[in-house]
Amino acid sequence: MDADHMMDFTKLSGLIPAVVQDAASGEVLMVGFMNDEALARTRATGFATFFSRSRNQLWTKGETSGNKLAVRDILIDCDDDTLLVKAERLGDGNVCHTGERTCFNKRAEGITIP
Amino acid sequence: MDADHMMDFTKLSGLIPAVVQDAASGEVLMVGFMNDEALARTRATGFATFFSRSRNQLWTKGETSGNKLAVRDILIDCDDDTLLVKAERLGDGNVCHTGERTCFNKRAEGITIP
Repeated sequence: MDADHMMDFTKLSGLIPAVVQDAASGEVLMVGFMNDEALARTRATGFATFFSRSRNQLWTKGETSGNKLAVRDILIDCDDDTLLVKAERLGDGNVCHTGERTCFNKRAEGITIP
Repeated sequence: MDADHMMDFTKLSGLIPAVVQDAASGEVLMVGFMNDEALARTRATGFATFFSRSRNQLWTKGETSGNKLAVRDILIDCDDDTLLVKAERLGDGNVCHTGERTCFNKRAEGITIP
């Protein structure tokens, strides 16, 4: 499918969430937001590119650190409003700006486990 | 960490994205949005509960189908604005309303693979 034209960018003012998953290990690494331009650049270059809400501009993950995310596959959800990007970690392989491999490195406590 | 009080709900008008991942297989199943109340209910009951933007109300995944998501772990990202919910699929195990196991069942084509 042509992801540029079939995604629904209306629900979050032009943005869609993009989950990045390690293509080899299945580990969820980060969630970023893409606008249509970020998605087009991701597809054209093969390197995950997002729209920074705080800086109001596109950013290719790893453009300064070298820790780029090389796209291996992109899946689209049933509502056409979310992407799952399967990627290979380049550079030192640490995706989070804190230097950790994944951005999800804190555990919520006090959860009822059914 | 006390996820109710440490999450940043300000970036998306009171909502945060919550990625649901199969606790056993690592497959990414869906992305929903939670407000503080949905997160509190998720933690208290152990069943993934979201805020429906279209219906403007809380919904516990599987409340009608029986295909609930039993929480096994919740991880918080570095910016405290996204959750990763690791869950066990109950019922027939199909998470998507289309009857598929995962909501991510379409492949984007025409991507440059670096």
